[in-house]
Amino acid sequence: MSVLVVGSVALDSVETPFGKADDVLGGSATYFSASASHQTPVQLVGVVGSDFPMEKLKPLADRGVDLAGLERADGESFRWRGRYRHDLNSCETLETRLGVFSHFRPKIPATFRSAQYVFLGNIDPRLQLDVLQQVDKPKLVACDTMNFWIESRRDDLIALLAHVDLITLNDAEARQLTEKSNIVHAARWILEHGPRTVVIKKGEHGAFMFTANSVFFAPAYPLDSVFDPTGAGDSFAGGFIGYLARTGDLSDASMRRAVVHGSAMGSFVVEGFSITRLLEITRSDIERRVAEFHQLVAFDAAVPANGA
Amino acid sequence: MSVLVVGSVALDSVETPFGKADDVLGGSATYFSASASHQTPVQLVGVVGSDFPMEKLKPLADRGVDLAGLERADGESFRWRGRYRHDLNSCETLETRLGVFSHFRPKIPATFRSAQYVFLGNIDPRLQLDVLQQVDKPKLVACDTMNFWIESRRDDLIALLAHVDLITLNDAEARQLTEKSNIVHAARWILEHGPRTVVIKKGEHGAFMFTANSVFFAPAYPLDSVFDPTGAGDSFAGGFIGYLARTGDLSDASMRRAVVHGSAMGSFVVEGFSITRLLEITRSDIERRVAEFHQLVAFDAAVPANGA
Repeated sequence: MSVLVVGSVALDSVETPFGKADDVLGGSATYFSASASHQTPVQLVGVVGSDFPMEKLKPLADRGVDLAGLERADGESFRWRGRYRHDLNSCETLETRLGVFSHFRPKIPATFRSAQYVFLGNIDPRLQLDVLQQVDKPKLVACDTMNFWIESRRDDLIALLAHVDLITLNDAEARQLTEKSNIVHAARWILEHGPRTVVIKKGEHGAFMFTANSVFFAPAYPLDSVFDPTGAGDSFAGGFIGYLARTGDLSDASMRRAVVHGSAMGSFVVEGFSITRLLEITRSDIERRVAEFHQLVAFDAAVPANGA
Repeated sequence: MSVLVVGSVALDSVETPFGKADDVLGGSATYFSASASHQTPVQLVGVVGSDFPMEKLKPLADRGVDLAGLERADGESFRWRGRYRHDLNSCETLETRLGVFSHFRPKIPATFRSAQYVFLGNIDPRLQLDVLQQVDKPKLVACDTMNFWIESRRDDLIALLAHVDLITLNDAEARQLTEKSNIVHAARWILEHGPRTVVIKKGEHGAFMFTANSVFFAPAYPLDSVFDPTGAGDSFAGGFIGYLARTGDLSDASMRRAVVHGSAMGSFVVEGFSITRLLEITRSDIERRVAEFHQLVAFDAAVPANGA
């Protein structure tokens, strides 16, 4: 089953302690698509400016990402420039130029409207809601958000929650949205406002998935070398939702495997600039890393008889 | 098999957003003992001042903690006063009065010298080494340390590493000791300097255990209410080393279960002031929480046949 993603397509310029990249492919929809395309076909809705080097998108199209919903508007493309310091934990945004993205009004092509799996990338919650009015009856609607919308569009975001099945957000955002400092309380608050599933991402500290009667935790993989953290969250979402769309299985067991597929994709993308690593890896690389995640947390809870 | 612990016994005064406690039982050896005593008999070596209310130690003695190595010296007991802010993540030390602890020279009673499991709590690494010269031939020697010793006794600490099998330290301390910002690199550096096992604690973000050919991760339990984080690290160590001493099994599978027992004890102790919760819980509470940890991270890596 294919998955529909609505979000940004950008040109990023990034500095890390290990190197520098200019005008490389970025944006939430880009990372999500490159990641999800390892699991299932992807339909992308977004906007780029008239200056956008369209050939940069060929690797996505080659991977089965349908770009029929990518609008090309008069004006400049969304550009972001950022710098990561030595420990890679804090990112300094040097410049954000929204360009045509500031007037983005997602238009879902007729052929995309029957999408069964929908990911609403981090955009204005009013636009996220507007997308839902353009699609038929998805089996699963997931959304992401960020501090900017929590501050400026809190009521719209809370209204959106009633219409989504799943939300991914980071721990600071969860605390900010719910005004609860305890992450369990924050998750419970969000569950009470609509979503059946809340995924709270903690970056290098892993991710929690909360439902009404289950908590699951997947660590971030302890990587030998983290090159560029940009896009980890959207690549996580791509692996996660992509896995669900591929299997069509929304059971707790499948959701857990999906979170780990998300963590695996997050662990790959940070090994290189932009989506480079996501274009290099294969399904078997992903399955191997999922198995490594399994080994990372595996233990037998029962005490052996001779150890009592 | 019993376990020998050398460390501090203190009187703590703690303020958290949820309450205040004055002159309650604290110190690394105290938390370690209360925790490990759920698994195995404990032999404690430490010092208190002539002002110490000895009746406070009765619950430890009742739990099988042998206090024959607890010296009572002329002078004031070690006192610590601290305050946790709203999010419980940062602790402000308001006062530290070392008292008799500043002249502490551990003397291991003759009956403790054949200890097979030794935990060197966070004291001067020269004293930790001195303890090792007083014991016969332990099966496992573990140590803890802190930023103060890394700064002031780095060479002594590195010399100690050659004589320990296992070290527990937090992520900031691991980075400081090794001058590596990547936690995998930091663990490797420590493994090259002696210990066969390195446990890197990340507080509310869980703990990693590294050996030459295996990495294990245990999350911290997502608690509904964290009351007072004091002593979580030493309670972790007590559950961890206590489990190993009880089972006598140092295989990778057993070490993994031991880490989870440590995490379970860390998750209990923060539910109350001082060692209160550790005195309330039973072995079956512990086994139940270990099972909850198992459920928290459990997933089946294999994709079901119908999901391909």
